Amino acid sequence: MLFRGGRSMAKPRRKAGRPFGNTREETHGRLLDAACSCFAELGYSRASNKQIAETAGITSGSLYHYFGSKAELFGAVYGDVIERLLDAYRIAATEHETCIEQLCGGLERIIVLSREHPRLVEFAASAYYEIQRQSELNALLGEEHFQVFDLFRGLLEAGVERGEISAEVDLETAVNVIVACVSGLAIHRGRLESEEEFAAALRAFQCVLRGTLFARPRREAT
Amino acid sequence: MLFRGGRSMAKPRRKAGRPFGNTREETHGRLLDAACSCFAELGYSRASNKQIAETAGITSGSLYHYFGSKAELFGAVYGDVIERLLDAYRIAATEHETCIEQLCGGLERIIVLSREHPRLVEFAASAYYEIQRQSELNALLGEEHFQVFDLFRGLLEAGVERGEISAEVDLETAVNVIVACVSGLAIHRGRLESEEEFAAALRAFQCVLRGTLFARPRREAT
Repeated sequence: MLFRGGRSMAKPRRKAGRPFGNTREETHGRLLDAACSCFAELGYSRASNKQIAETAGITSGSLYHYFGSKAELFGAVYGDVIERLLDAYRIAATEHETCIEQLCGGLERIIVLSREHPRLVEFAASAYYEIQRQSELNALLGEEHFQVFDLFRGLLEAGVERGEISAEVDLETAVNVIVACVSGLAIHRGRLESEEEFAAALRAFQCVLRGTLFARPRREAT
Repeated sequence: MLFRGGRSMAKPRRKAGRPFGNTREETHGRLLDAACSCFAELGYSRASNKQIAETAGITSGSLYHYFGSKAELFGAVYGDVIERLLDAYRIAATEHETCIEQLCGGLERIIVLSREHPRLVEFAASAYYEIQRQSELNALLGEEHFQVFDLFRGLLEAGVERGEISAEVDLETAVNVIVACVSGLAIHRGRLESEEEFAAALRAFQCVLRGTLFARPRREAT
């Protein structure tokens, strides 16, 4: 959930379950799913094109008809994954009126998305380090995470205009904190054993945002 | 801020500025500082023993009188860094009575620690991926992050006993969320340009914990 999205090379894509078929578009979709799982599980260096192709049910040779290199394939998965995650918040923003409800609505949509695509959140979380550490990825994707910041800045800026954000915190700092927390939750996914635990964590974070995690959020009298 | 600490091999250590000297203990301390910077900046694979030794002002040959391998050196830095970060919360826990104030006090102490040791938080944040991805580190340090969970579990468990935590959220989920958020903030450090921005982010997160980031944290009427 760390970064950028919407690379044109990631399209066409299907948002819900990709059918197992043999059209070019279907194979492209299966390759993205397979690569997402392999990169999330093994990391960029250890995931091989051969293994990704096998997971997608095609030969390594055929993979190169779709993507010129492992970096390009990673970039396509990245664009696809980030676009899906950002869409969760974009849709929630149209369904709710206040910042808190928009953020909580986005988190609820991510619970559903993660159930449908179990490795998606883990991939997004690991992508930050991969892009930082692998120069070929950095050259290709180093600037793309600004999209994530732009999305949350848009949500929070509208909240500032509606008087919803504390004057104690400036907009950019609020954006930083929300991005840091949702990134941390995404990274945490890999440590949890089930989607249920992840859903519970995202819901508890909603309590944090609403100020209800702590039953008595008061300052000490001291 | 992700993991375990207190490896005995990391000791003896000095908590505040290490003097530039030539005793064995001083050189050991300089090596830990140098390795922390190099690992944080370059990652485990790209940081070389030669460069770490040079940064510490000794020869690569001498480094092996202190640490048998790069993995062992990484483990020593990791133990040292995590111990310092956990100490911030341990001390804050003795200074405040409620969970929120203990957490906020710990975050204030980490602001100070990060100013004194600019790469410390970045190292801690990147360690999670390094340990996951590098099998030699995983063998050495794969279980140590439980210390971080134990610390926050202890703080929050006492809060549950005092009736401070919402009954909506079970203890383990609350621990997961706090660890995820502070980890996310640590990871975010690398993206910020200054310690001031990091301090602002940690203070804004304190507002989130207190339920004051959003001026009107109410549910919608719908």
